[in-house]
Amino acid sequence: MVGKTGIEAPEALAPGSDVLTLRVVIVYIGIFGREAEGRVAMDIVRQLKHFLEPGSVAIIGASRRTGEDAFNVLENLLSYGYKGRIYPVNPNASEILGIRTYTQVKELPEKVDLAVVSLPRSLVPEIVRQCVDAGIPAITIVTQGFADADDDEGERLQEEIDGLIEGNGTRVLGPNTFGTANAYINFSSSFIRMRMETLPVGLICQTGAFFVGFCDIRSVGKAIDLGNACDIDLADGLEYYGQDPETKVIALHIEGVRDGRRFLRAADRVSGTKPIIALKTGRSGRAAQAVRSHTGSLTGRDEVWDVALKRAGVIRVTNIEEFSDAIRAFLTLPLMSGKNVGIATYTGGFGIMGVDACEKSGLDLAELSPVTIEKLSALSPSWLAVGNPVDMWPGIMISGHSVFEMEKAAIQNLLSDQQVNAVLCIFAANKPALHVELCQLVEEAAREHPEKPLVFYIYGSFFSEVKNGLEATGKTLVFSSFDRAMRSLGHLGSYSQFRLEH
Amino acid sequence: MVGKTGIEAPEALAPGSDVLTLRVVIVYIGIFGREAEGRVAMDIVRQLKHFLEPGSVAIIGASRRTGEDAFNVLENLLSYGYKGRIYPVNPNASEILGIRTYTQVKELPEKVDLAVVSLPRSLVPEIVRQCVDAGIPAITIVTQGFADADDDEGERLQEEIDGLIEGNGTRVLGPNTFGTANAYINFSSSFIRMRMETLPVGLICQTGAFFVGFCDIRSVGKAIDLGNACDIDLADGLEYYGQDPETKVIALHIEGVRDGRRFLRAADRVSGTKPIIALKTGRSGRAAQAVRSHTGSLTGRDEVWDVALKRAGVIRVTNIEEFSDAIRAFLTLPLMSGKNVGIATYTGGFGIMGVDACEKSGLDLAELSPVTIEKLSALSPSWLAVGNPVDMWPGIMISGHSVFEMEKAAIQNLLSDQQVNAVLCIFAANKPALHVELCQLVEEAAREHPEKPLVFYIYGSFFSEVKNGLEATGKTLVFSSFDRAMRSLGHLGSYSQFRLEH
Repeated sequence: MVGKTGIEAPEALAPGSDVLTLRVVIVYIGIFGREAEGRVAMDIVRQLKHFLEPGSVAIIGASRRTGEDAFNVLENLLSYGYKGRIYPVNPNASEILGIRTYTQVKELPEKVDLAVVSLPRSLVPEIVRQCVDAGIPAITIVTQGFADADDDEGERLQEEIDGLIEGNGTRVLGPNTFGTANAYINFSSSFIRMRMETLPVGLICQTGAFFVGFCDIRSVGKAIDLGNACDIDLADGLEYYGQDPETKVIALHIEGVRDGRRFLRAADRVSGTKPIIALKTGRSGRAAQAVRSHTGSLTGRDEVWDVALKRAGVIRVTNIEEFSDAIRAFLTLPLMSGKNVGIATYTGGFGIMGVDACEKSGLDLAELSPVTIEKLSALSPSWLAVGNPVDMWPGIMISGHSVFEMEKAAIQNLLSDQQVNAVLCIFAANKPALHVELCQLVEEAAREHPEKPLVFYIYGSFFSEVKNGLEATGKTLVFSSFDRAMRSLGHLGSYSQFRLEH
Repeated sequence: MVGKTGIEAPEALAPGSDVLTLRVVIVYIGIFGREAEGRVAMDIVRQLKHFLEPGSVAIIGASRRTGEDAFNVLENLLSYGYKGRIYPVNPNASEILGIRTYTQVKELPEKVDLAVVSLPRSLVPEIVRQCVDAGIPAITIVTQGFADADDDEGERLQEEIDGLIEGNGTRVLGPNTFGTANAYINFSSSFIRMRMETLPVGLICQTGAFFVGFCDIRSVGKAIDLGNACDIDLADGLEYYGQDPETKVIALHIEGVRDGRRFLRAADRVSGTKPIIALKTGRSGRAAQAVRSHTGSLTGRDEVWDVALKRAGVIRVTNIEEFSDAIRAFLTLPLMSGKNVGIATYTGGFGIMGVDACEKSGLDLAELSPVTIEKLSALSPSWLAVGNPVDMWPGIMISGHSVFEMEKAAIQNLLSDQQVNAVLCIFAANKPALHVELCQLVEEAAREHPEKPLVFYIYGSFFSEVKNGLEATGKTLVFSSFDRAMRSLGHLGSYSQFRLEH
């Protein structure tokens, strides 16, 4: 699982590789060749289906060791309840885990969709040759020690594999990969046991670590680990997810990319219909060096990535929490059709932090319309000049309204205000109750204002209980930081604007 | 609880208020007047004890309404198990919640340490006068609608209170405050029910919202809400916590400060023995405007705050998650005596993200010593050139060591390396087990290397379970983001350096 994958930087897409050149390339893409690309894309989709929706799979190098720490692909696959046909291949066993085992590839009773290879690296090229001879269209090479190794032999073996598949239509994923996962058919070639959930997220990553979940994404719907990416690359995965009806949001973890031009073309096309969120790592000098070491790979100049991704309509995130937050925002919330946020708070102090975060994320504090101010003023003491953030506490403490009355009035009036595009509620969780009334209010708000995101910043001892309760509605998100809340809204706003202009 | 508190900016500390002037002021502080300041400080500590360690308290304006949403200070206080003497004052009741009630202040059977006032604002000055006459040394004014209000009357009433206590030694906290809390004696004047825990954190805030917990700080040990800060200010709280044996870490939430010079002098003195962590809000233009509106308060130029806080040895954080993380880091981990971090990972991809975060937080990736590399190489396949981050996976997958063997070898060898000052482990949580062996390893590491922080970044479906298990050792922290982990280590490193130079 080493992050040295022998792939090049996006500079490769244009000699000289300055920002201007990138712009020219993208404009060019926008004008020419869409039709031809569409035909090629459909071929790629057919090829990728063998990896992500296999009807039959051969596990080559199926291990007889089972149990914890055995990292047995076959054992994991059986545990998920995959309904396709499974053929273990192992010359030293006639049966593993109750499944009939084959001694070699040519003995397999059918031309399987996918071969998953987990064997010592020196044996891999010969197996690839046998798979090609048997007409197997898709090969996932789990084995480490190819371009990711620090010796010359690894590089040579990977080049040998490249040569074996050239021109015959067989596609290879990896080496050095977890392979693919698809919760919709309970399939995964990961040697780590993972949780399966049919979440409409399509992930492409350069480390399998993401397969087991990260931050608030506890599992992914479909996943492709590119590993060393000797053949299948980011662009291939994008083509697949772009047309996949089960994928609503596309998530990319990028260290580098082999063919930057092709990747940007695919991203530009797909981002017009589905949000693509990208976590580009290896930003710092030392990290880029770690990626480059021993393989000569380049991560690419960070500013070039910034411009290129933005132009292609890709939402760039800077860390793993923002990645998780943005994926959940696009899954759960509507696009934010403007930049103006309304804030409801019990405390001016936290309201000020919300305003800080709003400005930092490129959003604006909404100017409330007179009717909103009038309605909320009627609930507050006369000495309070109602504004945004809306301070609910004097209405409770001085005017004697209940907490829920004020919450309801603030949420409903802010959402009804034409000058407000999204609402952040800053609420306390000082008791474990699930706030049933508040959940109903969230559901009602989503019905009446389906075009406006409503999110929460929650503080207090019972954060988790209230977060779980509110998020169970499927209509809102709860954050533990103002920055995370506003950044998520910011992404919804930027992408909405991109879609309008696209 | 409005964040408009009538207090001024740190510019007030020096006309012209540029960074150079600030430096001169601090150098001046360092040379003169320490002894005289020490004497004054001890007076302040005695005064503050009435607020934080009262032996008796009068609740003036004790409500007969009880139950949820009644915000009854008396009811809350009884629920915590406070052992001091409590005297409710209410002219319309002879008994509330089973406690004998007094009709007016002069009837109280003793000169109480603290009066907590929660009455309509127009009645407050008269009550303050009565408390002063009765010789009560400390008054907390909970009531809103003074300098925080948007009318002239609020401002006038607050000035009236200022005049009433001038020169007679009575101290006032607030108005517009939750007051104080002290988990060590089960005391809080908060009208919101809070969780109590004897955590050695002393908090001073300008919104009571922090009393009920934030992020991973589910409760605070001692807390002072300054509210409008008409009298008791940041510097007073700092003097108290500076000498308080139950306070190990001091946490400040700052919007603005009345007497910047005095605050910086106190901070400079206290930071030499206890870490002070400050969340300064109102950074952005719009937020500063929100603070300033209607009261003419200034939040202060952000760059001035940056320089002033750094010079005074205060650790500045930028958001509420970093605030919580830094407090927990100083509570749980040793100071980091250098800037070099060792990283252990199963995955190169996540290792690269760790390196990105390391550089971003001003830390360095440790150059491992030859003996560390030799020992870890012996556990890995020959094609792996061991470096930092340490990639443990080939040792597991190719060389056949168990996951725990590799984790143990990586942690122990990194901590033993003289060139490593702290260790970040990037581990997966793909099963809910509490990792008993890993917890033992953490405890052993803390015994053998008490001077080196050991922290974790955990990913996977069972994040919470593994986090709770590891943190229960009291010797480590678990983060859900590389940035948060490295930023926390960065604060330990910077403060350690400040202490060395101080």
